Amino acid sequence: MTPYVAVVGPGEATAQQLAQARAVGAGLANRGAVVITGGLGGVMEAACRGAAEAGGVTVGILPGGDRAAANPWVAIAIATGLGELRNGLIVRAADSLIAIGGAYGTLSEVALALKTGVPVVGLGTWELEGITPVAAAEEAVARACQVPRLD
Amino acid sequence: MTPYVAVVGPGEATAQQLAQARAVGAGLANRGAVVITGGLGGVMEAACRGAAEAGGVTVGILPGGDRAAANPWVAIAIATGLGELRNGLIVRAADSLIAIGGAYGTLSEVALALKTGVPVVGLGTWELEGITPVAAAEEAVARACQVPRLD
Amino acid sequence: MTPYVAVVGPGEATAQQLAQARAVGAGLANRGAVVITGGLGGVMEAACRGAAEAGGVTVGILPGGDRAAANPWVAIAIATGLGELRNGLIVRAADSLIAIGGAYGTLSEVALALKTGVPVVGLGTWELEGITPVAAAEEAVARACQVPRLD
Amino acid sequence: MTPYVAVVGPGEATAQQLAQARAVGAGLANRGAVVITGGLGGVMEAACRGAAEAGGVTVGILPGGDRAAANPWVAIAIATGLGELRNGLIVRAADSLIAIGGAYGTLSEVALALKTGVPVVGLGTWELEGITPVAAAEEAVARACQVPRLD
Repeated sequence: MTPYVAVVGPGEATAQQLAQARAVGAGLANRGAVVITGGLGGVMEAACRGAAEAGGVTVGILPGGDRAAANPWVAIAIATGLGELRNGLIVRAADSLIAIGGAYGTLSEVALALKTGVPVVGLGTWELEGITPVAAAEEAVARACQVPRLD
Repeated sequence: MTPYVAVVGPGEATAQQLAQARAVGAGLANRGAVVITGGLGGVMEAACRGAAEAGGVTVGILPGGDRAAANPWVAIAIATGLGELRNGLIVRAADSLIAIGGAYGTLSEVALALKTGVPVVGLGTWELEGITPVAAAEEAVARACQVPRLD
Repeated sequence: MTPYVAVVGPGEATAQQLAQARAVGAGLANRGAVVITGGLGGVMEAACRGAAEAGGVTVGILPGGDRAAANPWVAIAIATGLGELRNGLIVRAADSLIAIGGAYGTLSEVALALKTGVPVVGLGTWELEGITPVAAAEEAVARACQVPRLD
Repeated sequence: MTPYVAVVGPGEATAQQLAQARAVGAGLANRGAVVITGGLGGVMEAACRGAAEAGGVTVGILPGGDRAAANPWVAIAIATGLGELRNGLIVRAADSLIAIGGAYGTLSEVALALKTGVPVVGLGTWELEGITPVAAAEEAVARACQVPRLD
């Protein structure tokens, strides 16, 4: 079955985080995964860009009610109007998570994933028991596409 | 902008409803619309099938937490775990609704759409002020792709 | 177990609907039911007022994120920020529904209730198979407190 | 305005955490606050018990669809059927959070609160920038009732 992998990270990101997210997106697309993000800027946009440039499918699950807020690399934009509660939908829709960087929204997604048994791979993110830390985008992709859902 | 059109209708449908849904799906795909459904059987599956066979993009917003419940014509399956509350997400994600047949779940989607200003086109569905009734699939597609969102 | 009964109806209501809602609220309080509404004006406010004046407990499940929007007769205000998606939460939290009047928001709640097996009693509302129509507030209260949940 | 304070913590808790939660619940009730929890056992139950014994009002926002799952000290039980997504509703309904202990569900609530500007007071919980750490229940109550919402 096609893996669905969420890439979560801050809307305002460092150059390194953006480069990692783009490489992660490309790697996921090369493995045939559907890339799910929160649909906005920063890490979300970079992951979508990397995936789209590599010919992959990108889904943006947006906090607001207007699809126009999606970054230009989102192929399928789902406007939810749920605000930050949409973070939980991103986790539910994914088989695994790749977390990049350490914002609070990202942390809420990581925590929900750990709570509900969705595997989390971390690239320079929160250090929590349960997250698999990796050093590079390629390893994150390999781990995220291999780990089965625990629940 | 690409129109997003939700096709809503019962999971257990008549042969006529299934034929209408499939024709609606095909028509929407031919116009370049993204077809959103609840992702399960009956009208939802027929609409997805029609769209997929015509080369269109189909999104299924599922009530359960397991993507495997999606019908085989869904390209992008979003498992929400929200139960019938996912009906509201279908309405939010769409620019307009085509309602086929008259089940209660469909009615909840139609009512939410009318309440929130999302145009509704009806094919043999509930007769309510605010729904644009049409007699054939082609007209439903034309109406759904033309009407701007009211809000 | 304490019955939880939702009273649903339009924010802009007629004098008759308001009088019915207030009488329904009072009747529910007299039977020891918790009264759940959408927390705003019109039928919601009249039902809360009737219940509060009779010493009952009132819960308002609000569409917005600000508790201050609750009508003054709401004892417990739950700000959801979900917009009209909170309608589904009202239905889920209730053992039965009393629907007064015929707005679209009300219809979405009635339809979700019928779809999910929550009994619906109607006072001058939509005529749908599955709704128990009654003529007076006292009968609505009696029916709503007696009917077991179907699912 | 009556403060609404959420007490969040694990369903399986240590004796110390339970004692802290019960003292926090009592303290909140004594200040007239409405105590919101996830409605289940452990820290949630102890906080409700403390509040109820002190004559306070307790609200349980449950993950499941059955009100019977609420602990016996919940006065108002809201069955949501949202699973862990109800964590976000707890945060939205509260003016401030008191976090006790360090489970993943708790972390998701803390992270959402920090993301959306709801003040968080911590008693033996995650150490994160933005959480106000305190050493005792009484201080937690005082802080939670004083801090205004930041957003």
